[in-house]
Amino acid sequence: MQTSVLLENLMQALQCLPGVGPKSSQRMAFHLLQRDRRGGLNLANVLSQAMDEIGHCIDCNTFTESTQCHICASVKRQSNKTLCIVETPADIHAIEQTGQFSGRYFVLMGHLSPLDGIGPKELGLDKLAKRLIEEEITEVILATNPTIEGEVTANYIAQICLECDVTASRIAHGIPVGGDLEMVDSTTLSHSFVGRTKILNN
Amino acid sequence: MQTSVLLENLMQALQCLPGVGPKSSQRMAFHLLQRDRRGGLNLANVLSQAMDEIGHCIDCNTFTESTQCHICASVKRQSNKTLCIVETPADIHAIEQTGQFSGRYFVLMGHLSPLDGIGPKELGLDKLAKRLIEEEITEVILATNPTIEGEVTANYIAQICLECDVTASRIAHGIPVGGDLEMVDSTTLSHSFVGRTKILNN
Repeated sequence: MQTSVLLENLMQALQCLPGVGPKSSQRMAFHLLQRDRRGGLNLANVLSQAMDEIGHCIDCNTFTESTQCHICASVKRQSNKTLCIVETPADIHAIEQTGQFSGRYFVLMGHLSPLDGIGPKELGLDKLAKRLIEEEITEVILATNPTIEGEVTANYIAQICLECDVTASRIAHGIPVGGDLEMVDSTTLSHSFVGRTKILNN
Repeated sequence: MQTSVLLENLMQALQCLPGVGPKSSQRMAFHLLQRDRRGGLNLANVLSQAMDEIGHCIDCNTFTESTQCHICASVKRQSNKTLCIVETPADIHAIEQTGQFSGRYFVLMGHLSPLDGIGPKELGLDKLAKRLIEEEITEVILATNPTIEGEVTANYIAQICLECDVTASRIAHGIPVGGDLEMVDSTTLSHSFVGRTKILNN
């Protein structure tokens, strides 16, 4: 028997979060009710605002509540004529944390997948081609996922770059830093041999 | 660089949930924005409603949005003169799932902890004593946690029951069903010897 319908609803609603099942949702609901009602209310407000207001950046497609995201709007970023192509906004987050890249991004919001009806138009590749020419981009870094679909998408965009006379490069595949060579799968290992770089050049 | 302040706020706010750190909150935020905005909005509504409206049952202290929870309001439950004492509303949830108990509950919302200023009054034990007499309770089942504080609290309440002339019982401690005897800690194992029950009585 339930003690409260609203509590059951809360447990149910929490399960829309990835990785949250019946047990975790119960733990979360009781935690919020017993110890952190203010945090729960704050989460409710921010969540409702975010779901309503966050749309896509007019230039790069990433999530933002403004017309243009902070990165696209940055004058310093605009002076760098490199464009990095990623599949999702989460990838931008990951790349930004490295501090390695100071150009701008273009988010595909997916990858080419003809069976699911996702073609070049759905990924906004016409918009991308326009940007390449209009903004005088000098290099496109293809940072799509290292999956079959990601590779196909990267190759397709490389073709567009060729037509627009823009250099296209792919991020390196190889063994992860700190990884154990014998634990790395053979495809990755063979990629690391193909993509080897010279050291101590004389 | 952030692409959106609201997105950062959402990731921050999600971390009020137990077991959710920076990585999971990022995954949750992107999941909701990309795939389940309706679920996110629903969660926001239910959460805000639950935090505002869920209070405590006037009889048993558990969480409910009504004055009296469903269990306390049930006529069938009221006819059973057994009262089960638990520390938190989550414990009721766990006991209800067993289907073993058909009486009513009393939630302490904690345990005796003089160092933290939690005494009998804070746990509502005066209210409990009143209930024992007024509702003609015949048995009190002490289902506080098997910790030092839980045991102390159980013993304290057993004293109150003695004064009110009500039978008090403690749920059994022993080896968990399906457990491996050699893996069970020695305190639990010794409890299981002390609390042994006779089988095949002639």
